[in-house]
Amino acid sequence: MKRNIYVSNTPLADARRIWRQALLDHHFFARAPVDVIPVDDCLGRLTAGPVFARSSSPSYNAAAMDGLAVRFEDLAGASEASPVRLQRDRYEPVNTGNALPAGFNAVVMIEDVHQVTDAEVELNMPATPWQHVRTIGEDIVATELILPEGHRIRPIDQGAMLATGITGIQVKRPPRALVIPTGSELIQPGRQAEPGQIIEFNSRILAGYLKEWGADAGRGAPVPDEPESLRQAIMEAVRDNDIVILNAGASAGTKDFTAQVLSEIGTVIVHGVAIKPGKPVILAMVGDTPVIGLPGYPISATLTLRLFAREMIAGFLGMEPPEPQITWATMSRPLHSAMGVDQFIRVTLGKVGEILMATPSGKGAGAVMSLVRADGILTIPAGSEL
Amino acid sequence: MKRNIYVSNTPLADARRIWRQALLDHHFFARAPVDVIPVDDCLGRLTAGPVFARSSSPSYNAAAMDGLAVRFEDLAGASEASPVRLQRDRYEPVNTGNALPAGFNAVVMIEDVHQVTDAEVELNMPATPWQHVRTIGEDIVATELILPEGHRIRPIDQGAMLATGITGIQVKRPPRALVIPTGSELIQPGRQAEPGQIIEFNSRILAGYLKEWGADAGRGAPVPDEPESLRQAIMEAVRDNDIVILNAGASAGTKDFTAQVLSEIGTVIVHGVAIKPGKPVILAMVGDTPVIGLPGYPISATLTLRLFAREMIAGFLGMEPPEPQITWATMSRPLHSAMGVDQFIRVTLGKVGEILMATPSGKGAGAVMSLVRADGILTIPAGSEL
Repeated sequence: MKRNIYVSNTPLADARRIWRQALLDHHFFARAPVDVIPVDDCLGRLTAGPVFARSSSPSYNAAAMDGLAVRFEDLAGASEASPVRLQRDRYEPVNTGNALPAGFNAVVMIEDVHQVTDAEVELNMPATPWQHVRTIGEDIVATELILPEGHRIRPIDQGAMLATGITGIQVKRPPRALVIPTGSELIQPGRQAEPGQIIEFNSRILAGYLKEWGADAGRGAPVPDEPESLRQAIMEAVRDNDIVILNAGASAGTKDFTAQVLSEIGTVIVHGVAIKPGKPVILAMVGDTPVIGLPGYPISATLTLRLFAREMIAGFLGMEPPEPQITWATMSRPLHSAMGVDQFIRVTLGKVGEILMATPSGKGAGAVMSLVRADGILTIPAGSEL
Repeated sequence: MKRNIYVSNTPLADARRIWRQALLDHHFFARAPVDVIPVDDCLGRLTAGPVFARSSSPSYNAAAMDGLAVRFEDLAGASEASPVRLQRDRYEPVNTGNALPAGFNAVVMIEDVHQVTDAEVELNMPATPWQHVRTIGEDIVATELILPEGHRIRPIDQGAMLATGITGIQVKRPPRALVIPTGSELIQPGRQAEPGQIIEFNSRILAGYLKEWGADAGRGAPVPDEPESLRQAIMEAVRDNDIVILNAGASAGTKDFTAQVLSEIGTVIVHGVAIKPGKPVILAMVGDTPVIGLPGYPISATLTLRLFAREMIAGFLGMEPPEPQITWATMSRPLHSAMGVDQFIRVTLGKVGEILMATPSGKGAGAVMSLVRADGILTIPAGSEL
């Protein structure tokens, strides 16, 4: 019974620092390649560089109101007491958006026009030059900066680009991430699990979170517990992906070959972090592709993925990771924390009077429902005790 | 020169109330049909009803640790001083997740095992019944409620469903929304606008926001300024869509046939709301399908859409509309508000010392960049004045 029980216990802060340095050494940060795509399809994508206006908008002087195009000089001195009458050649009906006809330099609103005959109008207010006219470049001037680099494109940004003649744009391609489930005991959902079999749903959870954090995440075929199959699956995955996630095989059971295989075809940077749950996580590099071996339990796997992969995705895209939403709450009952590890406890939140109370939503790294029910994660740093 | 300049000036609160009543009368709220889709594809969708566990998870007693399956009775009284030795038939090696072999009722961690010979181990701690065993249904019990109705499905929820044998789920189908650009002056992006022509980008902005708010939004082919073409386009659109958005044609120009056509084939509920920008908006019903005629300017159209369509999408899905994020700021310079209208002003925000200052980001309903640059919208209710 050969067992590889030597998993280290690296403090979380150290593990993060060492891992970040490895990613830096392998030029992982801001590695996102550039995709050129139609503006029509770029909603939600990140600009790969600053975007400048190609042409001005409007590109001609345009009526900003429904009414009459006039020459402001003709209306000098117009008032209720002494209205001005214009003949047909001194005005031109325009609708909003129409080009201002040549020779005219102001628009009078239709509400202010008194039509005397078919060919004569009376006006009783003066006009200012270019009144109710959208002049060339009033909105956007050619070469003007429209969007900075790393900007998440909103519908209005698409409008601004199209308005100035831009129809294609360079955006950052999100990292391709592949989640590979491992284990001979895995069966696909929809079948009844016989004793010893496990329904393979972890890869769905993990790929789902990777997508929510901005990756282009997919799932690989399950790999049986054989070093050679695992090696082949990893070699293939690192060729086509920017991030590879293995689940499970990270702990020290007789069939956990992951660390061994990774050390043969790449470098294991960290194996074992002082966190609970999630301790046996493996952080490795195969070529220049980061490979994370996650523990098998869904909760351990999900929380560990969150600790390491979320900021990797942001880093790949050259962005800051999102700040977690933090709230302060009072524990509803005493909790014995583990010594020497950063601990992550799923909690539900509820108000009792004015006080926000936190209650652990369930125990056990296998308890999927404890995370379904959770409103948040309570973090207990290794140095603290509850 | 026939002009239809009779647009009413209904206060916003009244317009909202009247419109909500019309939607209610036409059974628009909670109208979302049910889609049955694979759990693997349901990320981000809303549950159409409560979801109950089909089977228990785990469905068998399983080892929760790598180690040995034992009978806890055998270890009664075990200690450092008087360790217990077990022969091969009284223990069985197990990995995490393995089914507990028949006849065993506890698991001892591998770290606590001293292997004496190939067929004998020594243990120096007692075990409690079912220690390190995940018992049947420990996580989820068959028939247990997993998710309530109207719940936005997260990756962990997919995991919980798959874990209990659920592979298909009923979700709410988002409303189908079609944005139809109208106007003979429209040209497609990528062409240079000749005087009088307008690049058709509004429909992209509007469809983009509808998507962000949860609709399944598409864009129709541009319709020229002819009542018959418009009528046909609307009749076709209301057959296949839950919400139809027309842009533009809502104001009172010579070519704005929208209100006229809508009153012929349906009912105009409101035409003209006391808001700035966005006054000439049309809220109509054709059959049971709501049709909104938006003003032509991109900013007017966008802000008006936000006022009316956002809560329609939520209502269709039987959800509460999202609360706007509200902040308090000081105007950086005086602003003259319009009388008697609810006014919406795009502002940028910036801190000066500890004070958050708001500055209008640009004027004019045609100024796309003013909304690109804006950090928020300042609302001035009709009853207030700045």
